[in-house]
Amino acid sequence: MKSIHNKRIIVGPDNFKKVVDITSSGKVGLPKGQVDVQFLAKLAPGTSFEIQGEKYYLLECDTFDYIMYSLKRQTQIVYPKEGSYIAMRLDIFPGKRVGEAGTGSGAFTVYLSRLVGPHGRVYTYEQREEFFKLARKNLDEFCEYDNVIMYNKSISDGIEEKELDAFFLDVRKPWEVLEQVSGALKLGGHLGILVPTTNQVSEALVALEKSGFYTIEVSEILLRKYKINPERLRPEDLMIGHTGYLIFARKISDRGDGSSHPI
Amino acid sequence: MKSIHNKRIIVGPDNFKKVVDITSSGKVGLPKGQVDVQFLAKLAPGTSFEIQGEKYYLLECDTFDYIMYSLKRQTQIVYPKEGSYIAMRLDIFPGKRVGEAGTGSGAFTVYLSRLVGPHGRVYTYEQREEFFKLARKNLDEFCEYDNVIMYNKSISDGIEEKELDAFFLDVRKPWEVLEQVSGALKLGGHLGILVPTTNQVSEALVALEKSGFYTIEVSEILLRKYKINPERLRPEDLMIGHTGYLIFARKISDRGDGSSHPI
Amino acid sequence: MKSIHNKRIIVGPDNFKKVVDITSSGKVGLPKGQVDVQFLAKLAPGTSFEIQGEKYYLLECDTFDYIMYSLKRQTQIVYPKEGSYIAMRLDIFPGKRVGEAGTGSGAFTVYLSRLVGPHGRVYTYEQREEFFKLARKNLDEFCEYDNVIMYNKSISDGIEEKELDAFFLDVRKPWEVLEQVSGALKLGGHLGILVPTTNQVSEALVALEKSGFYTIEVSEILLRKYKINPERLRPEDLMIGHTGYLIFARKISDRGDGSSHPI
Amino acid sequence: MKSIHNKRIIVGPDNFKKVVDITSSGKVGLPKGQVDVQFLAKLAPGTSFEIQGEKYYLLECDTFDYIMYSLKRQTQIVYPKEGSYIAMRLDIFPGKRVGEAGTGSGAFTVYLSRLVGPHGRVYTYEQREEFFKLARKNLDEFCEYDNVIMYNKSISDGIEEKELDAFFLDVRKPWEVLEQVSGALKLGGHLGILVPTTNQVSEALVALEKSGFYTIEVSEILLRKYKINPERLRPEDLMIGHTGYLIFARKISDRGDGSSHPI
Repeated sequence: MKSIHNKRIIVGPDNFKKVVDITSSGKVGLPKGQVDVQFLAKLAPGTSFEIQGEKYYLLECDTFDYIMYSLKRQTQIVYPKEGSYIAMRLDIFPGKRVGEAGTGSGAFTVYLSRLVGPHGRVYTYEQREEFFKLARKNLDEFCEYDNVIMYNKSISDGIEEKELDAFFLDVRKPWEVLEQVSGALKLGGHLGILVPTTNQVSEALVALEKSGFYTIEVSEILLRKYKINPERLRPEDLMIGHTGYLIFARKISDRGDGSSHPI
Repeated sequence: MKSIHNKRIIVGPDNFKKVVDITSSGKVGLPKGQVDVQFLAKLAPGTSFEIQGEKYYLLECDTFDYIMYSLKRQTQIVYPKEGSYIAMRLDIFPGKRVGEAGTGSGAFTVYLSRLVGPHGRVYTYEQREEFFKLARKNLDEFCEYDNVIMYNKSISDGIEEKELDAFFLDVRKPWEVLEQVSGALKLGGHLGILVPTTNQVSEALVALEKSGFYTIEVSEILLRKYKINPERLRPEDLMIGHTGYLIFARKISDRGDGSSHPI
Repeated sequence: MKSIHNKRIIVGPDNFKKVVDITSSGKVGLPKGQVDVQFLAKLAPGTSFEIQGEKYYLLECDTFDYIMYSLKRQTQIVYPKEGSYIAMRLDIFPGKRVGEAGTGSGAFTVYLSRLVGPHGRVYTYEQREEFFKLARKNLDEFCEYDNVIMYNKSISDGIEEKELDAFFLDVRKPWEVLEQVSGALKLGGHLGILVPTTNQVSEALVALEKSGFYTIEVSEILLRKYKINPERLRPEDLMIGHTGYLIFARKISDRGDGSSHPI
Repeated sequence: MKSIHNKRIIVGPDNFKKVVDITSSGKVGLPKGQVDVQFLAKLAPGTSFEIQGEKYYLLECDTFDYIMYSLKRQTQIVYPKEGSYIAMRLDIFPGKRVGEAGTGSGAFTVYLSRLVGPHGRVYTYEQREEFFKLARKNLDEFCEYDNVIMYNKSISDGIEEKELDAFFLDVRKPWEVLEQVSGALKLGGHLGILVPTTNQVSEALVALEKSGFYTIEVSEILLRKYKINPERLRPEDLMIGHTGYLIFARKISDRGDGSSHPI
């Protein structure tokens, strides 16, 4: 059966990384030579093996490894540096009910599913059938909890859920669906938006103000990696210069008797 | 009873933020005037109120709000931009067993406790009594799950646990306790280290190599906030220039029969 | 006589910096105590003196020191990190003829004047009289070359010069004056624009394309300072998160017989 | 005759850039087709031409273009983003006398030569003969002023000059030559150092303190480019993550009568 628990990642020289399913069969190609999957299946995770004089380590494939090195992509994905921060800002924890649109390749869906645990729920919408199918395949491979409800439709046509704790938008025109998202969120619920351009940020900010959201933050995250050399410590020559801008907001209402508060 | 569920955050003009416990009594000071806690206790989270012509919103205090605006600090804390990424890289999810040293003010402990949920465990070590007491108070206030075991001692004197999934080190000389951490981790388990200086990164990298860890990444995270103005979108004038360097590694063993693999 | 050559900068503990004119008289206040200007006038630049047990150094005030610590500001200035890069991209060297609008406090004008030298010329336009007067005072204090022509008017009303090598625009709506700037530049001449917001970048890019400019680059520069401590090397806690976006372009013409090139 | 004034840069679709010497002969290859150098020689800089339906512009090759797209490299060069800032911090202007070691490919030497102008001098030292020859060739091609004195030797063996205004060090172990550099600088003179690793920064800082330098700044510069698209403004996906750390210091002396200042 497909599951993250049957996956291993081989790490080796020159930053080599490869994810393998140990319930499959055959051989795995390495930079030099190859290795039997059956051999790997018997190897304890955390131990090493050698092929043609090169040493490799076999590790359990964790959620990060799965998203970065195993999950099939046909779309830009939400990268871990943003995904982890988004999840924290949306207050995603065990038991939470969270919505998402669009699903894309399902990278962030996998992460949300893992975070909310067996008693939480992830409701994810993707209008394009090819991505919907790809994401379902990626989620089936990961298969940690049966807590994801997938829809092959656009949230422009409505969101089935109500009183969600949080919603994440990774669509081209988030300003066009804020009404639907607001309807699906509980009062005070968290909204997260990821867009690649400054023009989209501006357009989203205008719409958020009009749609009953209190904007908490607009930000971007830069991750800078260093070469792993203690005697010559320095950042890597190239870094990712941009993935996207993050917007965080919370659903508010001005209808209430709060305004009549006597001093 | 103290609990995150009894906390609210008041947000208002000029980035005003204040966390209030609605089971307490008395009045809360605002930039202009003050508001009764009892009034706030009856107000639905997500709604607004006005004091002296200024409009405020009352929101449920989420984990981020608690760490940033409520938790008492006597130490540098692990900030959310690093904390969320560390948690992802250490594969912290519901049910995991994770160790931490030192506890400090308990900011990251609170976050770990929330992430691992009721079936997970967080074992946290702090040698200085004043921080130990402070962190216990901060955890009691948060009080989501009874899943944190606190020790008022240094891990130099040993770690009680075995076969932990992950360990996080936020101590001045992480290179001096790698043997203890290695003994507490399962094979393939995740190690995360946070240090503020490049000298510490170099020293830790040397020790990691000698202590049976495979170093995955050295990195730093920059969060850049933008002013919330759609017509004049631009980053804020000042940003946090540095909090710390992150090191991620996994426990490995070269003892195994992996090396005898026939091609 | 006022001149940069009569200025010194006192540097001392806790990043203390103060610019002094040694042709003036009286005393200079320090963190502890004060020092006679006449005493400083006799001191060789590069040497130290002690006041109340604290050691200070007296250095010649260089152009950077003058801009950062002496020049009076009533406007946002072009900072050295951007100014030096702008100058390079505009190919500002001895003998060049360069235009600027608006002058502002004159920080970049001072720098341009120094770079183009005695045989170059800087033509600078400022429509607001208070800034015009301030910049003139700042330039008089600096007084290295008599090569700056100042106008108290907006370039919307026309630019006097023709065939300039380069033009720098630091105005709120650069897109409204591109025609004038194009008229003042030689064919192939360099244009530099500094704007603080993304909206202005977008608007400028649209206008540049329509106005006969070839856009070379849009960029921003981040300067990250480190604490000067070899045993605990680390960036400063706070950094400047944003000053402005830079746009570089060159004046082009499609009228020519270049299009009829036979292959 | 070789000279920057005989060089042009062709810019075209997809960020195409190519530097051509119009006194040479033959044809220049373009992404599609080719163009006669003689045709380009007659074309006014700033105008366009078309080859196989693609439009290109011919521009005068400026100093930035020469360094980035024409100068032959066998070494890491000082890039314009650092070079321009270094020059400003070292107070390099017309008439200054500045030293440099090592010359490398001569990229920064070219820039210094241009900045100090006909009455300034650049003294540059390179111990490796192959780089010395390469730099001389690059300087001959640029040929703006006859103001560069080149030495094929290491400054460990001594610096010929005295009373220099500034010195720039781009060598592997700057801490080993501080005595020589101090001897060549005037009191209060500027020192700039570029090193790629944090370990070198630490080692240089220790030596600077012992060698009679007052350290002004340790910093690094990040240049972030944006895609030139007004409707979809966003940074480029990849950026340069690191080139080097900059150290600026000034030569000081504690021998003087400054210490006996009466309060």
